[in-house]
Amino acid sequence: MTEASPISPTQLLEGLRAIVGEKACLDASADMQPFTTDYRKLYHGKALAVVLPATTQQVSDVLALCSRHQIPVVPQGGNTSLMGGAVPDDVGDAVVLNLRRMNQVQEIDSVNDTMTLQAGVTLQAARAAAEDAGRLFPLRIGSEGSCQIGGNLSTNAGGTAVLRYGNMRDLTLGIEAVLPDGRIYSSLRGLRKDNTGYDLKQLFIGSEGTLGIITAAVLKLMPLPSATAVAWVAVKDPHAAVQLLTEAKRIAGQAVTAFELISGPALTLVLESMPQWSAPLPDAHDWMVLIELSSGGDAQTLDATLMRILEEGMAADLITDASIAASLADAQAFWQLREEISDAQTREGGSIKCDISIPLSKVADFIQQASAQVMEMAPDARMVIYGHMGDGNVHFNPLRPKSAPAAQFLSEHYAPVSRAVDGLAHQKNGSISAEHGIGVAKRDDLLLCKTPVELELMWQIKQALDPKNLLNPNKVLPAPSAAS
Amino acid sequence: MTEASPISPTQLLEGLRAIVGEKACLDASADMQPFTTDYRKLYHGKALAVVLPATTQQVSDVLALCSRHQIPVVPQGGNTSLMGGAVPDDVGDAVVLNLRRMNQVQEIDSVNDTMTLQAGVTLQAARAAAEDAGRLFPLRIGSEGSCQIGGNLSTNAGGTAVLRYGNMRDLTLGIEAVLPDGRIYSSLRGLRKDNTGYDLKQLFIGSEGTLGIITAAVLKLMPLPSATAVAWVAVKDPHAAVQLLTEAKRIAGQAVTAFELISGPALTLVLESMPQWSAPLPDAHDWMVLIELSSGGDAQTLDATLMRILEEGMAADLITDASIAASLADAQAFWQLREEISDAQTREGGSIKCDISIPLSKVADFIQQASAQVMEMAPDARMVIYGHMGDGNVHFNPLRPKSAPAAQFLSEHYAPVSRAVDGLAHQKNGSISAEHGIGVAKRDDLLLCKTPVELELMWQIKQALDPKNLLNPNKVLPAPSAAS
Repeated sequence: MTEASPISPTQLLEGLRAIVGEKACLDASADMQPFTTDYRKLYHGKALAVVLPATTQQVSDVLALCSRHQIPVVPQGGNTSLMGGAVPDDVGDAVVLNLRRMNQVQEIDSVNDTMTLQAGVTLQAARAAAEDAGRLFPLRIGSEGSCQIGGNLSTNAGGTAVLRYGNMRDLTLGIEAVLPDGRIYSSLRGLRKDNTGYDLKQLFIGSEGTLGIITAAVLKLMPLPSATAVAWVAVKDPHAAVQLLTEAKRIAGQAVTAFELISGPALTLVLESMPQWSAPLPDAHDWMVLIELSSGGDAQTLDATLMRILEEGMAADLITDASIAASLADAQAFWQLREEISDAQTREGGSIKCDISIPLSKVADFIQQASAQVMEMAPDARMVIYGHMGDGNVHFNPLRPKSAPAAQFLSEHYAPVSRAVDGLAHQKNGSISAEHGIGVAKRDDLLLCKTPVELELMWQIKQALDPKNLLNPNKVLPAPSAAS
Repeated sequence: MTEASPISPTQLLEGLRAIVGEKACLDASADMQPFTTDYRKLYHGKALAVVLPATTQQVSDVLALCSRHQIPVVPQGGNTSLMGGAVPDDVGDAVVLNLRRMNQVQEIDSVNDTMTLQAGVTLQAARAAAEDAGRLFPLRIGSEGSCQIGGNLSTNAGGTAVLRYGNMRDLTLGIEAVLPDGRIYSSLRGLRKDNTGYDLKQLFIGSEGTLGIITAAVLKLMPLPSATAVAWVAVKDPHAAVQLLTEAKRIAGQAVTAFELISGPALTLVLESMPQWSAPLPDAHDWMVLIELSSGGDAQTLDATLMRILEEGMAADLITDASIAASLADAQAFWQLREEISDAQTREGGSIKCDISIPLSKVADFIQQASAQVMEMAPDARMVIYGHMGDGNVHFNPLRPKSAPAAQFLSEHYAPVSRAVDGLAHQKNGSISAEHGIGVAKRDDLLLCKTPVELELMWQIKQALDPKNLLNPNKVLPAPSAAS
């Protein structure tokens, strides 16, 4: 390896300004603060500078410059990571590279059913652009107004429609990415099939900016559904929820678009926090699911299909009560309840966030056992459990009892509870981060849930693509010494 | 790099026999011949030995032994590669490792909708096992009786249902693979979401056995469709076919399961070769499509949907004639015509095989321009053009005129015609190997269609995972010296 040529901070700033322009290179600490702190204000880092390039060539030039002088670079999209993945650490030797100025939807091809866009486009803008062209871009996550396509790609984002449409990886036909040394890789041809050598885009999707910085992508578009049917359903228990899902898939096939679990305490939390909102069912229930079907057919047929699922679920003693959305407004109100769960927890000072996935055949057992364990450790905790049951993905988020201050509850219980929940998930062949990624928050937990071979392979890839370890350093990969 | 410790062929055979057993290690050239020649008999290689391991541990032990002594290993499944990807070269210094004895379906989880199986299970057996459990494994390719899941994975197989269900990569939740040095990587947890670090399985899918040997997989299962509707449709031209596809997707959404293009000469070839079979339409047509819809709903609704697509296609002057399959037997007869195209060409001595994909918005232009170019180069060639139009994937296969012997036609036209067709595809942002892979046949063509950065990245990955270049050497990756 060649020695880095030394560069002073002043020289570096001059170099960066020559590339991105005066206004797009920040170095005052007040200006940098929104880029060095995550949106939940849990991670407070420092940076040498924040650059906001406007073109792929500028990204390339910045990385080439930084690589030459061995300056770490932290890529950042909408800065909505829950894992501290998009902010620098507090050493202060890194440059933050934020993609927000690269926010153009470049092409919608409604024959190829693809959309080509820059990494800094927000998910909301991407969905709106697709809809303007009469198409659906199906990724749906809570932070859609802020999060960006580049971040969605680098974290392989999931959300509420994965059951039907897959996660971000499944929705992507090609990307453009800048490598740590400034070289540009591009696969923006918009092909549905291309078996000419290694599928290199897969390296950059889900690797959280540690192998390259994604600057553009070609995404798949889907037909806009012509009919949607939504129900809020009380189920006997999580086992009944899983059985109901199996029935729903049998009856409605791929029309089953979302299948979200909601625990009683999760709904209670939202309703207490939003007293003007109505409960979807007259009585309280321990477990509920929000089901959405959608299709390209007529609404009447789809409504009948939903009704059949509910009737069979009642007959099989899985369902105890159900409310079908009679209008779009009803459906939106149901979804609003579901989507408010995350913010409602934040307003209570935050919960113990576990983002678990388990094979569907074991997820109900997991919920029961994990709940029992947590209730022993923190008997008064509110068991906010919800999420994408259709994918086996549960947000298992014990929340402080109303009587206990958040700081006290979290400092006492966060570490042991999350260790217990993650440990049980791992034991049941599950994942300790279904969709939120690793970032810095769960980096060292990989030592517990990955095999030595997996950790070695990750480092072999990292060293092959980023031999100087400059791109988003200390994220995702636990230190190799710790691994051995 | 450490020196390889020397080993004599006799010692190597002893070592291999100690691992896999006497009968599972072949070294007589007559015994090895079926494993060293591809099924089209175009590639004739040599090997030191052919081993047929029965367990993942045996695969690991074989690779560790070979790595220690720097012996190349060629992995092989059903040996149905069209690209010479699964047979050794004629140097004779390699061991062929065939997976056929690892043919167990290990688990079907009908709640998780997954199937865990060994790499040597044939696609046909995998589909049958899924169907026995009331599920669909949707991959559908001509060689299903012989090809194996491991080969399907390592070539990222495609086929006739990609439009709806995706290719092999999309259908895979996890794999087990043995690395070149014998280490075992495993991600067989059956999770639909798992964002814990790099998605390592993606490295092995589609890399044609150059990075590791896939020994097992967890595949997604789908609901068995309860209704299927099939039509054989004459269209005005390829542009009309693309427009009809857009209409079909608008009307039927994800129910559009297959959309196959068939040229007039392709159908004529099959009917001449199978005189007992009936033509699906009374008149001859230049261009036809085979459409399949499927759903979990009732047959009547789906039939009405198909009818609506055909009526709107007629009204828009896209369709000139159409025949709807009135029975399962009809539907099978239509599919048989489509699926016979490949073998019918083989019986005529083989065609110039180009496996192209193009963005859907440009595929019709491509077909027209490529046809015009080929007709100038080989005016009497039969233009056998067919394939998975729904994915922009065209098998563009000019065939000798009846008057010319195959050998003469192919030796005169193969190289210039395929160069012209591939060149045009590349120019139109297409792929020169949509689903057949690269193997040895198209390896050096990557120099024309990949950027230097792509080739460099492929080699960086190869060197990181297989630093001794022992696994399926000289496949997929053009020699680095040639690239620079």
